[in-house]
Amino acid sequence: MPELRFNLITKDWVIVAPERAKRPEDFIKKAVQGDPLPAYKESCPFCPGQEHLTPPETYRVGSAGTWSVRSIPNKFSALSREGSLERQISGIKRTMTGVGLHDVIIENPLHNAPPAVLSQEAFNQVMKAYRDLYRIFYQDPRVKTVILFKNHGLAAGTSLEHPHSQIVGTPVIPPQIGYRIEESKRYFEDTGECLYCKMISDELKDQERIIIESAQMVAFVPYAALSPFHTWIFPKRHMASLEAISDLELADLGQVLKEVLERFYYGLDNPDYNLVLRSIPDPRGDNEFFHFYFAIVPRLTKAAGFELGSGMYINTQLPEKDAAFLRGVKIPG
Amino acid sequence: MPELRFNLITKDWVIVAPERAKRPEDFIKKAVQGDPLPAYKESCPFCPGQEHLTPPETYRVGSAGTWSVRSIPNKFSALSREGSLERQISGIKRTMTGVGLHDVIIENPLHNAPPAVLSQEAFNQVMKAYRDLYRIFYQDPRVKTVILFKNHGLAAGTSLEHPHSQIVGTPVIPPQIGYRIEESKRYFEDTGECLYCKMISDELKDQERIIIESAQMVAFVPYAALSPFHTWIFPKRHMASLEAISDLELADLGQVLKEVLERFYYGLDNPDYNLVLRSIPDPRGDNEFFHFYFAIVPRLTKAAGFELGSGMYINTQLPEKDAAFLRGVKIPG
Repeated sequence: MPELRFNLITKDWVIVAPERAKRPEDFIKKAVQGDPLPAYKESCPFCPGQEHLTPPETYRVGSAGTWSVRSIPNKFSALSREGSLERQISGIKRTMTGVGLHDVIIENPLHNAPPAVLSQEAFNQVMKAYRDLYRIFYQDPRVKTVILFKNHGLAAGTSLEHPHSQIVGTPVIPPQIGYRIEESKRYFEDTGECLYCKMISDELKDQERIIIESAQMVAFVPYAALSPFHTWIFPKRHMASLEAISDLELADLGQVLKEVLERFYYGLDNPDYNLVLRSIPDPRGDNEFFHFYFAIVPRLTKAAGFELGSGMYINTQLPEKDAAFLRGVKIPG
Repeated sequence: MPELRFNLITKDWVIVAPERAKRPEDFIKKAVQGDPLPAYKESCPFCPGQEHLTPPETYRVGSAGTWSVRSIPNKFSALSREGSLERQISGIKRTMTGVGLHDVIIENPLHNAPPAVLSQEAFNQVMKAYRDLYRIFYQDPRVKTVILFKNHGLAAGTSLEHPHSQIVGTPVIPPQIGYRIEESKRYFEDTGECLYCKMISDELKDQERIIIESAQMVAFVPYAALSPFHTWIFPKRHMASLEAISDLELADLGQVLKEVLERFYYGLDNPDYNLVLRSIPDPRGDNEFFHFYFAIVPRLTKAAGFELGSGMYINTQLPEKDAAFLRGVKIPG
């Protein structure tokens, strides 16, 4: 019989229906294998030497000629960098000027090096860029929430080959995020404990959904994972914001995050995925009830009318089996 | 400059960024045109004559030999029809037995007749099946919420060609639905008015986002539409549940819903879409604050990391222009 599992953090019910489960191998996309990507592509505005084709840099690691990470304003920005925040209310219409920041983070000079195959050192530069830009974005007083994410592959919503992430500073706190914060606050008031810390210690006790545990970090498939191979990566120490992470912890996080992506890359043959940061929308950062983390959502299945109509999810994979599979992946080298 | 619009009903912020707008024609999928579908396909278990291949019928319009609509338990049901509702709580784990109902509604005997090209009479039989099954599902005491939806086309999550809808009775009220109900209740307490009734009268005053208005129904692109050509169809009279609709109103709803689908079919060349019912999860049905409706979400764009990370949406189309385009579509015949 299928089982309903409730995700206390996202407040989502998930129907875990492994009767319809596939073998992990069956998720591997039968994509037409094109030629492998070149390390450099002349027509790519993100490749070195084409910097004049992009808007002026907002951030860089390395010197201009030999940068290792750089960020630029998104040419197709969802929000306008100029202008002030203005609200308008008319009847039930609520409108606000679409001001904010929207950058593209070019993760490394190589056209063909997604995070999973990047050197650990280069990967950690990206992590540093994430934290630095996160801080910089909150310095703009119009920015209320910083959204940091990566779309990898067509099914995850990108058609650009050159490895890149995106960071957006929105002029509002989205109600979905506000709702989740309220709920974690409520849990804290009820129990005097951070709900996320509690989940981490429960998962570490159970062990069966853990993918990797390091000195400071832990990666696991949540008990009520919304979709196959859905993965969360948490700092074990309580921290509400990416802002609060130390250099040492950031390096550890980089190692764990990269290893998870490697396990996906080699185990599921480079699947399309979204990576998103969930961090308290507050530049001052710290509180007792929220806990920041990264989520990786492989795009192996498609949400349809049921998910749209109910806000519930159907996961045909058992989270325990997904975690065991990922633990077992052999990483070459 | 882009504009942020707030959808008071869904509590979603939408970035309306028409700087990146396409012409409606550009949304037409450049699909490989295969052979047109046959009216009958021997290998299709939903075609007449193959009834023995499906589980026993749960509902039918017409006689066994010449049915016009029938419903059957989903062979790949997300929930188990047998068994009782049991909850388990352990630490922060919340589990429930996955019991409930999950039927497939075979909309008509023809393999190649999607709703937009069906006769009005046949379409209204489907509407009758929707209402009847909606009522029948709520008679099961384990069912707390009935989710009625249709996935049309690959991008909307179906690979089955024969026109069909689905109806699921879940043993919980999904928190996302509960949250929306709470918010509409709050609006009612504040203003003494149904938020949805208010939106309908505002839209009718504005006129610019209206697609069709009939005696009892109205279809429009909401002011803060989440995605291109997102459409809502409401009864103008206050009704919290599909349960409460009269035969006359149901026929009118059928006419408006079919015309909207025709405008999509001919204007956007048969786009993939999800259709979902939003109705109060309560078999007794009526209250003063909630208002049932159908939503049509064409799957012309892809949600990615930004939407996942923020719960906000980016709509590159101006809702006013989408409505004007749909009003202008010429329906043959």
